[in-house]
Amino acid sequence: MADQDVQSTVGAEPPALPSLRWDEPPEGPVLVLLDQTRLPAEEVELVCTDVPVLVQAIQTLAVRGAPLLGIAGAYGVALAAARGYDVEEAVVLLERARPTAVNLGYGVRRAAEAYWAAEQKGADPAQAAAAALAAARALHRADAEASVQMAAHGLALLEELLPGGGHRILTHCNTGALVSGGEGTAFAVALAAHRSGTLRRLWVDETRPLLQGARLTAYEAARSGMPYTLLTDSAAGSLFAAGEVDAVLIGADRIAADGSVANKVGSYPLAVLAKYHHVPFIVVAPTTTVDLGTPDGASIEVEQRSGQEVTEVTVPQIPGIGVEPGIGIGMPVAPLGTQAYNPAFDITPPELVTAIITEQGTISPVTGVALAELCARSRQVTIS
Amino acid sequence: MADQDVQSTVGAEPPALPSLRWDEPPEGPVLVLLDQTRLPAEEVELVCTDVPVLVQAIQTLAVRGAPLLGIAGAYGVALAAARGYDVEEAVVLLERARPTAVNLGYGVRRAAEAYWAAEQKGADPAQAAAAALAAARALHRADAEASVQMAAHGLALLEELLPGGGHRILTHCNTGALVSGGEGTAFAVALAAHRSGTLRRLWVDETRPLLQGARLTAYEAARSGMPYTLLTDSAAGSLFAAGEVDAVLIGADRIAADGSVANKVGSYPLAVLAKYHHVPFIVVAPTTTVDLGTPDGASIEVEQRSGQEVTEVTVPQIPGIGVEPGIGIGMPVAPLGTQAYNPAFDITPPELVTAIITEQGTISPVTGVALAELCARSRQVTIS
Repeated sequence: MADQDVQSTVGAEPPALPSLRWDEPPEGPVLVLLDQTRLPAEEVELVCTDVPVLVQAIQTLAVRGAPLLGIAGAYGVALAAARGYDVEEAVVLLERARPTAVNLGYGVRRAAEAYWAAEQKGADPAQAAAAALAAARALHRADAEASVQMAAHGLALLEELLPGGGHRILTHCNTGALVSGGEGTAFAVALAAHRSGTLRRLWVDETRPLLQGARLTAYEAARSGMPYTLLTDSAAGSLFAAGEVDAVLIGADRIAADGSVANKVGSYPLAVLAKYHHVPFIVVAPTTTVDLGTPDGASIEVEQRSGQEVTEVTVPQIPGIGVEPGIGIGMPVAPLGTQAYNPAFDITPPELVTAIITEQGTISPVTGVALAELCARSRQVTIS
Repeated sequence: MADQDVQSTVGAEPPALPSLRWDEPPEGPVLVLLDQTRLPAEEVELVCTDVPVLVQAIQTLAVRGAPLLGIAGAYGVALAAARGYDVEEAVVLLERARPTAVNLGYGVRRAAEAYWAAEQKGADPAQAAAAALAAARALHRADAEASVQMAAHGLALLEELLPGGGHRILTHCNTGALVSGGEGTAFAVALAAHRSGTLRRLWVDETRPLLQGARLTAYEAARSGMPYTLLTDSAAGSLFAAGEVDAVLIGADRIAADGSVANKVGSYPLAVLAKYHHVPFIVVAPTTTVDLGTPDGASIEVEQRSGQEVTEVTVPQIPGIGVEPGIGIGMPVAPLGTQAYNPAFDITPPELVTAIITEQGTISPVTGVALAELCARSRQVTIS
């Protein structure tokens, strides 16, 4: 991979690297990603000098998480523009990189529209590229600000639903700083609860097949000094049955107009368990995750990923085995020839969602009307 | 491990080895186990010459599954008696090896009672040992026969609940020939459906953390030529939502007097999903799994296993890494110091169980009275 540069930053207590940053070395602008496939074993930066490398990073989940995908998509357009590549082609490649998270396409379009608007006003290529970069940076800042707002709204909702603190919160997949320009979505709420002294425990689903909970959420929880415990996704049932879960907090990859929530596979079983046990099931996502153009859950395209993610366990680092740095080894755990069903996401219908928290506020119960009002408010803010 | 002998039988199409067999080489009797921790990569036999090695094999899950644990426990007592070891000490060690599966203690007591009864009748040690071995062999045969009966009752129930065939059956963990003197419990029913032409698909939960579904059930399904698909435990929710599951079939490690079912962790979430989606949730287990001395689910001791099973992924075979044969390498997938919650089992209350199928017949609805009647019938059969 000629366009990819790997910088190892392994250390006993390495500094927390940003999940994504724009850099302008003398050789030309680059988008630098924290390679999430290498965490928590090591913090390695992946330097994208063109769009195909970024698309590959998106597809291999080196960069992932709905809000961060939007930001990465916007910077990807800015990168193509700044380096003089074909912007229209970059838009197509980036929008198609993964189908489910609506934020990716949103970020790509934000930067592309800024680029084309500048062109139409007679800007030269450098000026148009600067406009795309400014749009990406604005989206990045807005997402960081949205994190702050979601955390505040989430904390207020927890205090309302569960007065007295001592919250035991179950989360799935990874929704912290690694997926966001700020401190994330669901994780940011749990972190706010921790800082306010009301978090008794964060239950972290390991989140098969790619173990984002074990690898990434546990990493972020440990860094933040939160009281957390890891569990297999299936063991969540025992926690509900024992009355050990006060609320479920998850993120979202796309929220349809009726309030159906696409999120990491395994979210829907948690929603059913939460309903059965009368536990609040709360979705935290910026309004950029809401897609009013998708009417309902059945209309959401769910990405089907390779069965190898299930039939093999990828071991990122094996001392003594000479593999290319950054390439994990797939160790088979099922018989050769085994077919696997591997949807990346599932859909939770609105009747199982207690509340949706966005940077614009909280809706509960979740209805299409309430969601549309929230998004209208968001657009007013964007326009003003 | 001085008392352990490993014989590799790797080949392109190795013959199916029995999960457990008694052997009498010139050096003295041994209990030979198929090491289930090495499957599906290779079929390796583990030769137990004394009880501590067998206890270790039970605790590391080299031998596992409720019915097979009962058979192994009975042969363990026979082994101690035949080799002149302390039978009372063997009984204590074996009964305590794992707490949840009631069959283990049942098998141990069956052989021990035969041994002591022979002693009381004036038998010499060799005769008493022969009595213990005869009891173990009788239990082994009875379990094989129970498999046949359960498969027949299960097939009849499927035809009654889901007339017309084309069954898409979801199963969890491993319940086939590897756990039984015969073809198993839940798996035996699915296999009978396959042979009768009514199985459209077997959905195989991978069953974290130890992946018995991926490693063992997929292996048994592939060997039997069944149409099967592997999935992460969490992805079962998507299958239910899509209407792709006609019935859930699982085994059991202990059934309390009220009909509460202890089974591999992840069974309870499936029961809740099945209830929510109006899909039959069927438990298949021999009456030796019913423990009328345990009044209800809350009284069942659930084994808590090491958090390392969750924080590390055990890779059994890594070419080029010099480790002791049979010992997997634990590759960390979570940050160092991460605590994990790792119950081996969960409890499904009777109101979520559509039917319990035993060798004595099927009960539906599941009530304490019906269960007691079934067990009374079983005892009459045993006495007669």
